[in-house]
Amino acid sequence: MAGSEFQLIQSYFSEPDQVERSDLILGIGDDCAIVSPKDQSHLAFSIDTLNSGIHFPHNTSADAIAYKSLAVNLSDLAAMGAEPAWFTLSLTLPGDDEWDDAFREQWLNLFSQSLFALAAQHNIQLIGGDTTHGSLSVTIQVCGYLEQGEGLKRSGAQVGDIIVVTGALGAAAVGLDIVLERNSVQYSELSDNDKQQAVQALNYPQPRIKEGLSLQAVAHSALDLSDGLLSDLGHILKASHVGAQLQVEQVPLASALSCLDKQQAWEKALAGGDDYELCFTLAKKDWSRIKLEFPHFVAIGQITAEKGLRLVAANGREYKINAKGYDHFG
Amino acid sequence: MAGSEFQLIQSYFSEPDQVERSDLILGIGDDCAIVSPKDQSHLAFSIDTLNSGIHFPHNTSADAIAYKSLAVNLSDLAAMGAEPAWFTLSLTLPGDDEWDDAFREQWLNLFSQSLFALAAQHNIQLIGGDTTHGSLSVTIQVCGYLEQGEGLKRSGAQVGDIIVVTGALGAAAVGLDIVLERNSVQYSELSDNDKQQAVQALNYPQPRIKEGLSLQAVAHSALDLSDGLLSDLGHILKASHVGAQLQVEQVPLASALSCLDKQQAWEKALAGGDDYELCFTLAKKDWSRIKLEFPHFVAIGQITAEKGLRLVAANGREYKINAKGYDHFG
Repeated sequence: MAGSEFQLIQSYFSEPDQVERSDLILGIGDDCAIVSPKDQSHLAFSIDTLNSGIHFPHNTSADAIAYKSLAVNLSDLAAMGAEPAWFTLSLTLPGDDEWDDAFREQWLNLFSQSLFALAAQHNIQLIGGDTTHGSLSVTIQVCGYLEQGEGLKRSGAQVGDIIVVTGALGAAAVGLDIVLERNSVQYSELSDNDKQQAVQALNYPQPRIKEGLSLQAVAHSALDLSDGLLSDLGHILKASHVGAQLQVEQVPLASALSCLDKQQAWEKALAGGDDYELCFTLAKKDWSRIKLEFPHFVAIGQITAEKGLRLVAANGREYKINAKGYDHFG
Repeated sequence: MAGSEFQLIQSYFSEPDQVERSDLILGIGDDCAIVSPKDQSHLAFSIDTLNSGIHFPHNTSADAIAYKSLAVNLSDLAAMGAEPAWFTLSLTLPGDDEWDDAFREQWLNLFSQSLFALAAQHNIQLIGGDTTHGSLSVTIQVCGYLEQGEGLKRSGAQVGDIIVVTGALGAAAVGLDIVLERNSVQYSELSDNDKQQAVQALNYPQPRIKEGLSLQAVAHSALDLSDGLLSDLGHILKASHVGAQLQVEQVPLASALSCLDKQQAWEKALAGGDDYELCFTLAKKDWSRIKLEFPHFVAIGQITAEKGLRLVAANGREYKINAKGYDHFG
């Protein structure tokens, strides 16, 4: 950590009332942070970078950038069924030619407040970091606890498993259209409330930590939906060497999709990306119990021995879709 | 991890003959990696980002970028006296408008080979990552083991301690001048061998892992020299609430400094940066034993109760220096 960078981190990221975990031995300010993991535990690690202009539009607020950078990493812990513990942050900020000191200060204030607010919600503590200059970019690495033998892998789906999503899909994709002023005509009928919710879904995804922890004992496989249901479910199928049949009309649609025709709405929900709901599979016998506990979870299909992903309409006919994956907006 | 990114990582970073640690439960390819830390151990974390044009010149080879990105992180573990275990990598590569597929493939081949070669030397395993596009940037987070109660902090220096560096300083600063073709006249007398060694010192710093482990039981404080001796030693003094007297003429000069006059040479050695030697302090009584074990270590001064850092020449007079810190070349 360079001297000036160190001071920057010290002043904005040493918030006195941030989370204080008892398993942290040494926090920000030395060559390394030191933690003391619980004995007999396993640790889950994930790292994700969000670049301006790629993962979020250039005009995104510091508040949203901070929130989303931590949220997408927490979402990876959720997908593994892990309990959040610590994170590190590497922040690349534009240099003096682009940002003046006043703007940088204001930006860092908003960024750090938003970051610490979400961290506090999930009892995860910032333990170290690096700051430098260049194109605006945020890298966060999270670390969380698992019990021995735990971990919701992508590779555990079994033939006959029910495929479930933890919430409605497609809102973030609409939010992105709205933010980028794309397809404005389509969304002209949308209420202000729906518009706002869609942008909220894009910028402030809810990491499904509680859900992931609850699924630990019951789900056979899981992941979080970042690239779009079709693309992400494909990872489970590939890793588990199975196929799936998806009941397209069962896929829960975000209310922001109400202004679109059915075909367009399903395309957003199936391939829109940035939803950060969990998608998991579990044995048929366990589904009703989980549905009781989480009534908003929705079964959308079944794992099959036959490879490939088949989309089926209510009339039993195969359903065709244009979009396939999601490559952010870049 | 997005779909296409995932495939990229899979193909280049799932090297079959890379380090295989027995404490890794689940490696690259799922939402998180899972590790099983040794019971009763503590873990040290550090994260560092290297941006093209800031931390290395744009024309730096993929091989050198990979090496240095991991080396500077390993150096943080060394400075803590930690034993390397696992690392994650987040890689931002230029998009198709700047790099064509053939170049990207070649670059990734060189990068991954160099990364794995250094990782193998230190028995540290790549367990996860993220790749995206944007300005070329490499973020690595390392994690290593400490015994309970261990950890070479910056805050432990005691009045009367000897200040030691683990090797000669200033070569990397000369290497940077050479690479950027700065001050060419000064270096015209330098042998090709010295020039090559200077560039080597810049691009391939040796993380002092073995030294850090050996110092665990004896050093009172330590850090690695990334920004330059004066700036970095200042961190120890501040964290330890002490001062220091530095014998300028004792500071070991890299042979690449031989072409400079004494004043210039000391400035490079004291403020040049990118050395990645360790600087540590220890009790006077322990110094002769450590010097026997590591004859190339050099005592350069002493910790004082009086605050501030005083540079003293051999004749006892205070020594003035122009340069103060190092802000890379950006």
